[in-house]
Amino acid sequence: MDDKPKIWTAALVAIGDELLSGRTQDKNVAQLAVWLNDQGIRLAEVRIVADHQEAIVAAVNALRPVHDYLFTTGGIGPTHDDITVDAIAAAFGVPVVIHPAARAILEDYYRGRPGGLSDARLRMARVPEGAQLIPNPSSGAPGVMLDNVFILAGVPHIAASMLEALSGKLEGGRPMVSMTIGARAPESEVADLLRETEGAFAGVAIGSYPFFKDGRYGANFVIRSDDADLVRDCGEALADGLRKAGYEPVTGGI
Amino acid sequence: MDDKPKIWTAALVAIGDELLSGRTQDKNVAQLAVWLNDQGIRLAEVRIVADHQEAIVAAVNALRPVHDYLFTTGGIGPTHDDITVDAIAAAFGVPVVIHPAARAILEDYYRGRPGGLSDARLRMARVPEGAQLIPNPSSGAPGVMLDNVFILAGVPHIAASMLEALSGKLEGGRPMVSMTIGARAPESEVADLLRETEGAFAGVAIGSYPFFKDGRYGANFVIRSDDADLVRDCGEALADGLRKAGYEPVTGGI
Repeated sequence: MDDKPKIWTAALVAIGDELLSGRTQDKNVAQLAVWLNDQGIRLAEVRIVADHQEAIVAAVNALRPVHDYLFTTGGIGPTHDDITVDAIAAAFGVPVVIHPAARAILEDYYRGRPGGLSDARLRMARVPEGAQLIPNPSSGAPGVMLDNVFILAGVPHIAASMLEALSGKLEGGRPMVSMTIGARAPESEVADLLRETEGAFAGVAIGSYPFFKDGRYGANFVIRSDDADLVRDCGEALADGLRKAGYEPVTGGI
Repeated sequence: MDDKPKIWTAALVAIGDELLSGRTQDKNVAQLAVWLNDQGIRLAEVRIVADHQEAIVAAVNALRPVHDYLFTTGGIGPTHDDITVDAIAAAFGVPVVIHPAARAILEDYYRGRPGGLSDARLRMARVPEGAQLIPNPSSGAPGVMLDNVFILAGVPHIAASMLEALSGKLEGGRPMVSMTIGARAPESEVADLLRETEGAFAGVAIGSYPFFKDGRYGANFVIRSDDADLVRDCGEALADGLRKAGYEPVTGGI
């Protein structure tokens, strides 16, 4: 018998008062989730916390021991509300230091710009002692990695470019595969079929997402597993079941 | 001396594999945050967890004792992946029962519709023992409240109508007031001003949100407090400071 393959998991701590006040609609959760799927890592939990050191430390120290990877977004800019590096250093019990390579990157980036490398900008070279840098192709100030913690920017396109720099560098398992089958079926009419189909294919999860479109009810059913054959077989079984119940399955979803 | 007024806080547990896979971009966090601000309640923490009973129970039992209110979104439909009611019942250690008023609402809603009130649909009348209902003006199946826990739908417009039904019914403090001041200032150039201004007005928080628009850098500064006078005074001080530094403040933000 094969050993069960390891499932690699990650958590995200999204940091920022603006997320909890409703000012800013988060986009990093979905973006990180999709990127992690491609790396064969599952996003298992997200916590959104305020710009408050105790809250960040508590979330980071709760999650980093129980997941393979922990990501943070937000709070790494030059202003007083950017406290993520200090909080991560506190979580690890290490001091904050200026990273020489980060300083060099910033010196380069701000050379010739008005204001030069001011004290505020130099804040962005601060890292927890022992940390390494994550390249930031889009705006100079690098991300930071320490042990299994990856500190990313909060601005989504900057976070995206840091993830791009990490692509293929984190160990993971098989990427998640998903297939969507839609039907003009009220989900409550096919609830038994969904439950039975999921039960017949150990290792797949079927999610049911109802919609109301063009004046008619329907639902999309998302079949997910890291075993592509299983997803395909389960999808065929579900499509057959839908047809028998009088609904036309639409592969790819509606 | 006045006693410090109580700060009312809430947490959200957003439930759903689709949020953690990246399939669905969450909209409930920002929507709940804005609604809570109007009720004088602060959204203090959010956790996003999978459709997995243990994960839901752990998040709910960690958060409900430390906040005045706990909201959940998602997982209250008729299909096998809708396990929120069971998880909340398990978190409270009570059985799941059919709520007679919820059953009556569903009987009414499905009378004359194809399939009628099937077993799958009757699932949506299940509540933890002792729970009350939250009206759902938009799609029949009600939300559920038990103690300080409020179980809402995951579909954003349905969650919104449940919140509407709760408006003005939860005790809170003074609503949060915020003022945004924008400037074509790189945030790193005014970092000291922001820190000093926030320090001079105890009880306000200033957030700094940089942007790059029309080929120029700038930032919006958001001043928040439950004391409207303090927000106004702090805003004037920040605007003065920006002018002195050579930047034109734009009230309302850029």
